[in-house]
Amino acid sequence: MSPLPPVRIGLLGLGTVGGGTLTVLRRNAALIAARAGRRIEVVCASARDLGKSRALDLTGIELHADPHAVVDDPRIDILVELIGGLEPARELVLRALANGKHVVTANKALIALHGNEIFAAARSRGLMVAFEAAVAGGIPVIKVMREALAGNDIQWLAGIINGTCNFILSAMCDAGRDFSEVLAEAQRLGYAEADPSFDVDGIDAGHKLTILASLAFGIPLQFERVSVEGIRNISAEDVTYAKRLGYRIKHLGIARQQAHGIELRVHPALVPTRAPLANVNGVMNAVMVSGDAAGPVVLFGAGAGALPTASSVVADLVDVTRALTTDSENRVPHLAFQPDTMENLPTLDIGDIETAYYLRLMAADEPGVLADVTRILAALGISIEAIMQLDRAPDTAEVPVVILTQRVREAAMNQAITSLEALPTIRTPLHRIRVETLT
Amino acid sequence: MSPLPPVRIGLLGLGTVGGGTLTVLRRNAALIAARAGRRIEVVCASARDLGKSRALDLTGIELHADPHAVVDDPRIDILVELIGGLEPARELVLRALANGKHVVTANKALIALHGNEIFAAARSRGLMVAFEAAVAGGIPVIKVMREALAGNDIQWLAGIINGTCNFILSAMCDAGRDFSEVLAEAQRLGYAEADPSFDVDGIDAGHKLTILASLAFGIPLQFERVSVEGIRNISAEDVTYAKRLGYRIKHLGIARQQAHGIELRVHPALVPTRAPLANVNGVMNAVMVSGDAAGPVVLFGAGAGALPTASSVVADLVDVTRALTTDSENRVPHLAFQPDTMENLPTLDIGDIETAYYLRLMAADEPGVLADVTRILAALGISIEAIMQLDRAPDTAEVPVVILTQRVREAAMNQAITSLEALPTIRTPLHRIRVETLT
Repeated sequence: MSPLPPVRIGLLGLGTVGGGTLTVLRRNAALIAARAGRRIEVVCASARDLGKSRALDLTGIELHADPHAVVDDPRIDILVELIGGLEPARELVLRALANGKHVVTANKALIALHGNEIFAAARSRGLMVAFEAAVAGGIPVIKVMREALAGNDIQWLAGIINGTCNFILSAMCDAGRDFSEVLAEAQRLGYAEADPSFDVDGIDAGHKLTILASLAFGIPLQFERVSVEGIRNISAEDVTYAKRLGYRIKHLGIARQQAHGIELRVHPALVPTRAPLANVNGVMNAVMVSGDAAGPVVLFGAGAGALPTASSVVADLVDVTRALTTDSENRVPHLAFQPDTMENLPTLDIGDIETAYYLRLMAADEPGVLADVTRILAALGISIEAIMQLDRAPDTAEVPVVILTQRVREAAMNQAITSLEALPTIRTPLHRIRVETLT
Repeated sequence: MSPLPPVRIGLLGLGTVGGGTLTVLRRNAALIAARAGRRIEVVCASARDLGKSRALDLTGIELHADPHAVVDDPRIDILVELIGGLEPARELVLRALANGKHVVTANKALIALHGNEIFAAARSRGLMVAFEAAVAGGIPVIKVMREALAGNDIQWLAGIINGTCNFILSAMCDAGRDFSEVLAEAQRLGYAEADPSFDVDGIDAGHKLTILASLAFGIPLQFERVSVEGIRNISAEDVTYAKRLGYRIKHLGIARQQAHGIELRVHPALVPTRAPLANVNGVMNAVMVSGDAAGPVVLFGAGAGALPTASSVVADLVDVTRALTTDSENRVPHLAFQPDTMENLPTLDIGDIETAYYLRLMAADEPGVLADVTRILAALGISIEAIMQLDRAPDTAEVPVVILTQRVREAAMNQAITSLEALPTIRTPLHRIRVETLT
């Protein structure tokens, strides 16, 4: 092997991902050195509670309670930020860059919200910032989009990029159970946080979609333009009726080039059972990217967890190591495109997006209701693909009516929903879920 | 954009992949330059028949009938070899390297059989040879293994890496048709060559597996150690019975680390219907890689075709462009590992491999046959997982007996087959297909 000196790492955070990263770096040290051409050594690390007992081999690593001691350690070549959250992560990363250190991070919120600032700071000093672990854990979706699809005009991407949502929806689908019941189970199993809002309300998926959309289309990171919807309103009934119609309900992040702008949206959707993403279950993640040359490419794997996320952190460390001697302007750009070629393309408001819809109405069991419903939809030019009137539930006077529409602008659908909810025979709110064929 | 001069390409071959590459480079020129940091321009190209009319924009490209004129053109930075086959491809690539040119190729046979020689020549001059398009068309499996999984101890990989075999087996499974009938259709549709042997006998998949195994385990390229079996012996009956047992038959390339050596094998196998690879149909390809950190990662996409393959060729061009200024010892190594760390690990003979088996025997409809069969298997320590005796076919005196065994060494199974075929009540040859759960 070449006699290059080891690359020295400072590690912020010894939690799940930090511990996993240390484990992988130690367990596979020889393999990693054989691939990277030099050894990768952690020389210092910080953790909030140094007294906490950890099942980690920390031999030879200088430990600090203050993360600044790691960031300012003159020995390190690369800072690995695995503490998560916005502050102090942002301040520490910027300080590391000011100190001339390359950065590897798994922090999706940080990249989605402060990535433009961080990458500008890195560029001005010719430094690399790598963040493969920020999206979809062990699945190399960032590398594939930045490098493997570099010849493609990317048309759209869709991903199951939040393991908590996918676990909950998979369990609802398999067992016909309700959202709140499965959420409680996910919390017991450690697949959902005590405060699950970040995941089940779609914010985490929104951060990840922000990053993927920027890589795909060469637009700045702009989380504020993503339309975000979570899965709290999905009921066991919807899951059951969707199944009968040949669909599964998945929580998707979608970015798509349209004639007048780019769609950026995160929401639950009915997906045809035979689509590859329909069969991604439990805490697994998958991303489908459609390029004009490659066609659809699907990546599937573990979207979270200590070791899968560590796999991506270490891949970034190897990438940075292999690229250390490249002129900075010849490297893989942080956001796939050279900064001066990035364009602030228009993004579409959610009202301007066109999809098919699943509607579930709880209707009074009276003559004329269906006629009212179909009249309202027809008046707005909304075509019906299928309509099912279901058996009355035992303890109610209402019958569920399920409608699949053809594609329609969301604004028109919202208008239809307002009119439908004004009918005295329909219980409000009605349930609507978008339908995505992913083609 | 940075004022770097364009990278200049010489292109060998204007056939399917060469034409696709030119199309993608021209259509997406601005996007590619925005990602690569400089323009990528084809300055000269060669084709066997210059008079042939092609639906390609060849403006500004110097055309030659003699590929040596391209290889020796002093203007070019990168030679793109898309003529396929062993010679003159090998000689031309080595000559380009001797001339100081980087090389991008889609030629799996060339890499599998002469890669060790080509990479040594490239290393001695500090040049890159990129070959993403050589395996699985538009799916970036080489990049994922060399870079994204660089932190992993790779345990095994399994892939559907020949589109012709997968098209034929998918059609046999969907329609219950026989091999020869579907092969003829595949030939009509252009999915199989007039001489289909290279594909249906597993040689092409063997070349690809050779490359993947080297990347996974740091072993030299050694096609001669791959046990190769094609799909000619798969019958419509086997497909039907496999379905009834909950399996689909797929043609797989498998490489796996075992205690005493590495398995390298290409053959049809029964795969459980719920396994991700079971649902990869038609000419699509997929590769599943299992790393100790990442867990299983699955990549799915178009395994062949002009534009998907061109997508990978252009990705390689962008990679080479981005890495042009790196010190050669810091680059991604050709075969994932630094050359002096590669090990000639032992590879296992196929007789030493352990799998479960599907057996189909055409047995005389007489008492005692099943007893003979089960006695022979038991004597060799082969446990039976399931046994089905099926209805007698209308125009025969034989009944099909289908057996699923538990895992057993192939050598023991071969011994069992010899004994079974010696029974006067069993028609020879019996049919045996390996079973892979892919876990």
